[in-house]
Amino acid sequence: MRHSLEVMFEPTAVVVIGGSSEPDKLGGRPIHYTRSAGFEGDLMVVNARAKEPVQGLPTFKSVDDIDRPVDHAIIVVPAPHVAEALEACGRKGIKAVQVLTSGFAEVSEDGIAEQGRLLEIARRHGMRMLGPNCLGIVGVHNRFHATFATVLAAFLPTPGGLGIVTQSGAFGACAYTMAIQRGIGLSRIVATGNEADIDVAECIDFMAQDPRTRVICAAIESCRDGDRLRRALRAAAAAGKPVVIMKVGVSAIGAAAAATHTGSLAGDDAVFDTVFAECGAWRARTIEEMMDIASLLVIGPLPRNQSAGIVTLSGGLGVLMADVCAHAGLELPPLPAGAAERVKALLPFAAMANPLDMTAQAEPIPNGWQRVVRTMLEHTDWGTVFVYIAAKAAAPARFESSLPVLAEIRRDHPDRCIVLIGPSDTGIRQSLEQMGFVIMDDPSRAVVAAGAAAKLASRRATLNAAHTATATAPRHALPAVLDEASAKGLLGRYGIPLLPEQVCVDAETAVAAATSMGYPVAMKIVSPDILHKTEVGGVALNVRDENALRDAFARMLSRVRSAQPEARISGVLVTPMATGGVEVIMGVQHDPVFGPMMMYGLGGVAVELFKDVTFASAPLTRGSAQVMVDSVRSSALFDGWRGGPRMDKDAVVDALCMLSEFAIDHAQAIAGAEINPFLALPNGGFCLDALIHLKPSTVS
Amino acid sequence: MRHSLEVMFEPTAVVVIGGSSEPDKLGGRPIHYTRSAGFEGDLMVVNARAKEPVQGLPTFKSVDDIDRPVDHAIIVVPAPHVAEALEACGRKGIKAVQVLTSGFAEVSEDGIAEQGRLLEIARRHGMRMLGPNCLGIVGVHNRFHATFATVLAAFLPTPGGLGIVTQSGAFGACAYTMAIQRGIGLSRIVATGNEADIDVAECIDFMAQDPRTRVICAAIESCRDGDRLRRALRAAAAAGKPVVIMKVGVSAIGAAAAATHTGSLAGDDAVFDTVFAECGAWRARTIEEMMDIASLLVIGPLPRNQSAGIVTLSGGLGVLMADVCAHAGLELPPLPAGAAERVKALLPFAAMANPLDMTAQAEPIPNGWQRVVRTMLEHTDWGTVFVYIAAKAAAPARFESSLPVLAEIRRDHPDRCIVLIGPSDTGIRQSLEQMGFVIMDDPSRAVVAAGAAAKLASRRATLNAAHTATATAPRHALPAVLDEASAKGLLGRYGIPLLPEQVCVDAETAVAAATSMGYPVAMKIVSPDILHKTEVGGVALNVRDENALRDAFARMLSRVRSAQPEARISGVLVTPMATGGVEVIMGVQHDPVFGPMMMYGLGGVAVELFKDVTFASAPLTRGSAQVMVDSVRSSALFDGWRGGPRMDKDAVVDALCMLSEFAIDHAQAIAGAEINPFLALPNGGFCLDALIHLKPSTVS
Repeated sequence: MRHSLEVMFEPTAVVVIGGSSEPDKLGGRPIHYTRSAGFEGDLMVVNARAKEPVQGLPTFKSVDDIDRPVDHAIIVVPAPHVAEALEACGRKGIKAVQVLTSGFAEVSEDGIAEQGRLLEIARRHGMRMLGPNCLGIVGVHNRFHATFATVLAAFLPTPGGLGIVTQSGAFGACAYTMAIQRGIGLSRIVATGNEADIDVAECIDFMAQDPRTRVICAAIESCRDGDRLRRALRAAAAAGKPVVIMKVGVSAIGAAAAATHTGSLAGDDAVFDTVFAECGAWRARTIEEMMDIASLLVIGPLPRNQSAGIVTLSGGLGVLMADVCAHAGLELPPLPAGAAERVKALLPFAAMANPLDMTAQAEPIPNGWQRVVRTMLEHTDWGTVFVYIAAKAAAPARFESSLPVLAEIRRDHPDRCIVLIGPSDTGIRQSLEQMGFVIMDDPSRAVVAAGAAAKLASRRATLNAAHTATATAPRHALPAVLDEASAKGLLGRYGIPLLPEQVCVDAETAVAAATSMGYPVAMKIVSPDILHKTEVGGVALNVRDENALRDAFARMLSRVRSAQPEARISGVLVTPMATGGVEVIMGVQHDPVFGPMMMYGLGGVAVELFKDVTFASAPLTRGSAQVMVDSVRSSALFDGWRGGPRMDKDAVVDALCMLSEFAIDHAQAIAGAEINPFLALPNGGFCLDALIHLKPSTVS
Repeated sequence: MRHSLEVMFEPTAVVVIGGSSEPDKLGGRPIHYTRSAGFEGDLMVVNARAKEPVQGLPTFKSVDDIDRPVDHAIIVVPAPHVAEALEACGRKGIKAVQVLTSGFAEVSEDGIAEQGRLLEIARRHGMRMLGPNCLGIVGVHNRFHATFATVLAAFLPTPGGLGIVTQSGAFGACAYTMAIQRGIGLSRIVATGNEADIDVAECIDFMAQDPRTRVICAAIESCRDGDRLRRALRAAAAAGKPVVIMKVGVSAIGAAAAATHTGSLAGDDAVFDTVFAECGAWRARTIEEMMDIASLLVIGPLPRNQSAGIVTLSGGLGVLMADVCAHAGLELPPLPAGAAERVKALLPFAAMANPLDMTAQAEPIPNGWQRVVRTMLEHTDWGTVFVYIAAKAAAPARFESSLPVLAEIRRDHPDRCIVLIGPSDTGIRQSLEQMGFVIMDDPSRAVVAAGAAAKLASRRATLNAAHTATATAPRHALPAVLDEASAKGLLGRYGIPLLPEQVCVDAETAVAAATSMGYPVAMKIVSPDILHKTEVGGVALNVRDENALRDAFARMLSRVRSAQPEARISGVLVTPMATGGVEVIMGVQHDPVFGPMMMYGLGGVAVELFKDVTFASAPLTRGSAQVMVDSVRSSALFDGWRGGPRMDKDAVVDALCMLSEFAIDHAQAIAGAEINPFLALPNGGFCLDALIHLKPSTVS
């Protein structure tokens, strides 16, 4: 079955509507670039005012005048005429339309309405539409350079396995130029602009099944359909095509800029991090980092594990690279004894460690560093070997003699990621890349790129089937009023452990409850109208006996009534006082793009000051809940902090899974829910407080 | 007065001892490179076995045979012959010697001893020595290419203002190659190797007064003399020469590698961060980052403030750059109304914000983006303006016409840092750089580099005179025994506020003390032998009345005696129970390289789990103590956390200054001291516990 974007990327007959005879103008460039590149399909122009063929192509007054089949249109007429042109395309039976024209949702309210009209026209005629306000498509192997990006005039792409899809055209042009400058072969480049119809996710999905594309680079500014993005990323991972993706808008300032740039809300940054990782993609933080990783992925085998070795001509650079390895998640296992012995025979003064500093002794030995690299490969299963070769590859005359030795190493070890580091001559670099050796100038960037590739490989290997929320009715219905007691009651029905508690309407009942539970107890006001109990005097902790309880009961009611006279009070909750243990916080938040997202962290300043929290898409598996608990830095507190007892991590994992079940059951109704704190104890744990927020539409 | 390294860098007559006639060999390269470069001083060779002049130079059998004056020697003979050659240099009256030969402290214990012998010989003859095991010196303007680095054969340096000094030769070669590849002009390059005599600090000090050098890049692996490094960095800052410095060995793995690589201990990474910042230098994290910043510093004026504007052809890249600005400490003020009005007249659809997205409308307007940049410069005082120009500078034919407009902008605004972003043609880049415009490919790297330059400028402006420790006798002597009570007593004499407390030898005295202080009280065992009181049952908190006190007293003594029977017990300390407030930790640690370093952070998990601490060299000024308190993330807890009261920040600042005075007074004797916790209250604060550790040599 053909992908629905096939005609968008692989057209056979293309009309440029509004095409100009001046090859340098916006409306002339797509024609000029596509013709110069040598596109083999039919190419024609619609231009109402043209007296002669535009740029030598068949030229028509209107779409309706075209006398031959057309499957793809590029619209470059001014904004007020786009809708009319689109209708004409529909009448003609064209299936794919790119609207390069700007002046729609990105400029005004009227523009938003007009863009909606374009989408309606496209849908009505069964056309797929790219844009408006987009830079268009560059097909490299089919020479379909349908863009007005001037970068094409400066740098022509060579065919290869890298596909680039970005929302912003200028962002794409920047990535594209970097790819070309470093000689990465390209399959397709596409910028989606205002995304009225086709978005970045759908283009990733196309590239996932596109035989021309082996590696995908993507950049998004916003996302309107989280599940489509998830499916596309998983499709790429399943097809063995690594995705390196950027999402801009990570800081407060950045988010403000994103709000003025597009009409859509920038999603929560941590949520994007989470979703990308869950779907097997790698999030790059700079365009250059994205291209570093892409070039490594296009050239060589992915690292097969997280272990790495470093061979260096400079101890200092070895240390630097070891530091970056630690940050990039690459392990440096010690040099095995067998390897050390062999290297020692060759280089008696080298420090037998990983990093292995060959020192200047290696200099006079024929193929010295190559022999050391071979020894490392033979004696270890390390996925990546880094070799700092100083400026050796910058001197072609000297270096060429070592190419055959390297070819043998590659032949004997085809599945290792081997990264040479140092400045290089262009010809030497190309030879090395063809042999499957990566060579990069900067040691830190090389390690970061290889670390990302290793992570991509491991994410691909552990990628689970997507969990989707069930659409069945909730197992336990929402209560009418969502105060603390009923929130806890509902969560309790999902299995979340609660301390005994009783809502007491008078002091007598409270005394009886406390007596049966045992002192000390905690007391809390129960009211659907009070969110922050402490601030209105609605909490008493460590209440030690009956007198203290009666006293606390009376004072609590009087303080709450004077602080918030209109609040409905259901009573006072009495519960045994729980102490010791570690307080954690767990919650679920409904993300407008990605649905219910689970949150977990340590209670108190760890969450609020240090943002030591982690996220995962709901529903959780036991495995993903365990990963959450282990991935916050404060998980150290579970393992016997300062000589104290170990806390029951399993109880926390269980509670997270139960909260996830609750969240999926009530995904339609709930904006968020939070257990804060959940007290983890040496044996088990308890939800001490809980809040459930409904979506505005659910509140009656 | 001439700098003592003058002859090392500016020799007039040079002998290569052990020089080889083969220009490709280690011993032949310094001769070959220096001759090819066109060094104008005398050049000669000592080679006992040479039958004819080596590489056409005057050649002697021994140093003693040389018949003319010599002021500089390059030693390349094998290690066992170096000492002998050095003695001969001394006899000849040579003042500067580079020992390129390896096989000394970096390989073995014997090598360490032999290196000590070399230093002794050099000192005895009043010679300065570079190395051993070093890559040597490259003087660019005097064409003194005294190195065996093959990189010189691949890339010849052009003269300019950047000086590079590194400990590791291969590290230096990598930095050097990058500098040359991006066309940065160089003054001098030097690698110090084993640093028996001359270290990186002294080379920085030389470059600080060297008229050829305007910007300094440095890389160290270890530092043996902290004050020399401090003085050198301050000398460079005072001379208006920015220093960009790397210190490798930042992670545990990295430190392990550093330990095998050099004989010296890697200093604490946070301490280096602190010292670099205090001395006006910028610490770079990758070689490439170092070169990015250096190229920006060499080209243009330093940003005069932390404000920046972004002009972009891509909204997405504007967002990306805004994000990086936030991380790099650059502020993006809103576009002033006057500027917005003028831009609006030019570009009606542009989003009037900072970043300013010009959109595709700017395309057809002659000098569109240049006019927007000029408007920004005229209506703001922003130190830096970033302009994303896509691939415009990659097309020389089109771009050249805009050079005169840019020249006018530069003439009218000579003191602004203007950074263009996008791929560029080499010729265009050179023209722009000559005009004082920076142009870089990657937007993120450009922002990081400009942010660093802005920080360097502000550090230079606020650089204080160095505070040095006084050498006078301590104002308050150390007590004989350093248990908690006497440690607090001593700190109290420096003004640090303490709660009333009394060491009580029996329960009766304790009851009397508590009665006069008022209940509740805290009780703690007092013993010079017990460091962790809680673990032996030596702490009782919140003791509410006489009965509870008697009970606690008896139980504490019995528990401590059974846990640690041999401990000397001075009594039980009774003090009023202090609650509320924010617990902070402050301390001083004697760093073997940099002397007493002050530490400050929030108590509890914030310090131990999140390392939310900050350091500063002692002695502190009030200003530097304030910076410490403000720079930890947990300082938010002082400003009314969750609606609570504000805490007294001044009391914490005062205590830090007092602890600093104490630390300077006792710098000779003390390994470390710590107040943990210091309780900050809404009014004032108290030291609740303190520890003082003596240096091993001080413990009697």
